[in-house]
Amino acid sequence: MSDLFPPDRLARAQRATAAAGLDALLITPGADLRYLTGYQAMPMERLTCLVVPAGGDPFLVVPLLERPAALASPVAGLGIEVHGWQETEDPFAVAAGGLRDALGGKPAMVALANRMWAEHALALQTATGAEVTLAGRVLRELRMRKSPAEVDALRRAGQAIDRVHRRMGEWLRAGRTEAEVGRDIAEAIVAEGHVRADFTIVGSGPNGASPHHEMSERVIQPGDPVVVDIGGVTPEGYCSDSTRTYVVGGDPDPEFARYYAVLQAAQEAGCAAVRPGVPCEGVDAAARAVIAEAGYGEYFVHRTGHGIGLEVHEEPYLVAGNAEPLAPGMAFSVEPGIYLPGRHGARIEDICVCTEDGVERLNLVSRDLVVLP
Amino acid sequence: MSDLFPPDRLARAQRATAAAGLDALLITPGADLRYLTGYQAMPMERLTCLVVPAGGDPFLVVPLLERPAALASPVAGLGIEVHGWQETEDPFAVAAGGLRDALGGKPAMVALANRMWAEHALALQTATGAEVTLAGRVLRELRMRKSPAEVDALRRAGQAIDRVHRRMGEWLRAGRTEAEVGRDIAEAIVAEGHVRADFTIVGSGPNGASPHHEMSERVIQPGDPVVVDIGGVTPEGYCSDSTRTYVVGGDPDPEFARYYAVLQAAQEAGCAAVRPGVPCEGVDAAARAVIAEAGYGEYFVHRTGHGIGLEVHEEPYLVAGNAEPLAPGMAFSVEPGIYLPGRHGARIEDICVCTEDGVERLNLVSRDLVVLP
Repeated sequence: MSDLFPPDRLARAQRATAAAGLDALLITPGADLRYLTGYQAMPMERLTCLVVPAGGDPFLVVPLLERPAALASPVAGLGIEVHGWQETEDPFAVAAGGLRDALGGKPAMVALANRMWAEHALALQTATGAEVTLAGRVLRELRMRKSPAEVDALRRAGQAIDRVHRRMGEWLRAGRTEAEVGRDIAEAIVAEGHVRADFTIVGSGPNGASPHHEMSERVIQPGDPVVVDIGGVTPEGYCSDSTRTYVVGGDPDPEFARYYAVLQAAQEAGCAAVRPGVPCEGVDAAARAVIAEAGYGEYFVHRTGHGIGLEVHEEPYLVAGNAEPLAPGMAFSVEPGIYLPGRHGARIEDICVCTEDGVERLNLVSRDLVVLP
Repeated sequence: MSDLFPPDRLARAQRATAAAGLDALLITPGADLRYLTGYQAMPMERLTCLVVPAGGDPFLVVPLLERPAALASPVAGLGIEVHGWQETEDPFAVAAGGLRDALGGKPAMVALANRMWAEHALALQTATGAEVTLAGRVLRELRMRKSPAEVDALRRAGQAIDRVHRRMGEWLRAGRTEAEVGRDIAEAIVAEGHVRADFTIVGSGPNGASPHHEMSERVIQPGDPVVVDIGGVTPEGYCSDSTRTYVVGGDPDPEFARYYAVLQAAQEAGCAAVRPGVPCEGVDAAARAVIAEAGYGEYFVHRTGHGIGLEVHEEPYLVAGNAEPLAPGMAFSVEPGIYLPGRHGARIEDICVCTEDGVERLNLVSRDLVVLP
């Protein structure tokens, strides 16, 4: 795990905080905290907050009863001081007071973890008396570019979810409900190397035309296309996310076979567009052009992809309007889809990593149309 | 389900919003949204936001690809208009524009869901140009007092977790690791009527002295006290949470038996103190006094309890300093503990509901010390 949490990460974040003209980062439990310290805590009403001053020593404020857990985490090895607060203390005052001491005065501008709860955000704003902004301004640059160890972790996550897709024929059959199939898949996601299944989309027939349909009691019919979009979190904390669209128990509607071939070409075009310097929206445009040219443009109703790492959706987003240039180490999904309302839909999704000179795909299960018996 | 989501709940929230001098509530996915509309959505980077103006019609802003799910939820039956935003639109501008139209002008003060992500909170603050505060100011009064239908739902959740505790002898044995036992318990939590296990604390021997220890690879030893604190969410969305402390495979340390009797008396005293008009801190004090009197005061290191409902921790909190008077329908845990660092610990937890003239406990498994074979 040491490679995944290099000890200089906090120092880099501090330098970036100072360079951005911010006085401190205030980081509550979630992916940012895990990224910076390896400490995995649940967000809860009792404040846990890593305070990273632009200068001086970072410290962690935790409820007294979480202190043993914090000290047993990688936090202790990083030399971060852990302040436990009592149930009757004001933890926001504890965090703000510690920050004032570290800075030698009142902060003017602090940056809050993007996913901090509003109740903590407003209380920290009041307690520090500072202007607030988002820590993502500083952390996005760090978190977007995965280290080789992080790419390894994502590669293992990709292999784990690939193993689940390869076993799909064990569960996905006409005559079963989406929910039955989904429960089996969720168990397999854990069995194949995740600590939990994060999502299990099984969209059969017309349900496949709703991109975020999860699963229902619909009985899968012979010839149905079925969108299966699944992912989980590995013990290292990294996420998997891969979609394949299957046909079960018979030949599909001929129009489905026609647009599936278009979709496959579009997904190839999206992946092929990945290389350093290409803007995020360029990958979206490359995939979208193939679909539009074939006359299905209006049926591709979502962005082409999202970044992935310690969170299943994170920056960068592959969407029109995002001119952020790709850089080596960026990891994201390429997942165009075509959805015919009321009829059926298809999506193909791989996690891709931008390399020094192109792309590495982390999902390697065949993208050809698979007809399961 | 209709009783759980009475159609007048939104109207009551609107009246309370106006009475508090607020222009609107802005509610992202989470328990507040489920409470107000029955719509169960995952928090994500794409904005979903219920806008509840103090006057005029509430509306829901959702990503276009979530619109089918929103329309399939109870939202449609409540007559809430659903605005789908396109991937290239600014959803914060959509929400703010709709609010201006509903109010006939710019809002001065809007209230954000307490658990809204900071990135959404700051963007909504900018887009509306309003001062912000927390929606809890309005919603806590509604959510704290459970309706009879909600108490029924909590009663069913209590029965489900009681069934798991009654089966504890199937899994909890000396020679097994905490993690092995915990995995079995987590499966049973689902099997006995929850959609998921929320937490599974198995703290054996010295680990029982860390109140928020989860589980470890420690092998449970004969004579170990084991704190088992477990809970999940039922299909209706309501939470369970109950702790029992067991002894396995032999007689415990005599001091454990001594303070367990103290703890049991303290938990009884806490529950017995519950009735309308008693301040929250009064219940804490009643339990704490018994423990302090027996000389274990310094080993009871946390508050006595937390509210429970659609969230496992919500208001009211039973903690020194909280003068909020109990009222019929309030539901909360009563869970004193005694923790001897490095040795062992114990906690007993029931969910209690304040009734018209006293208390109803929702967890009915014996609190006597159980020695499992």
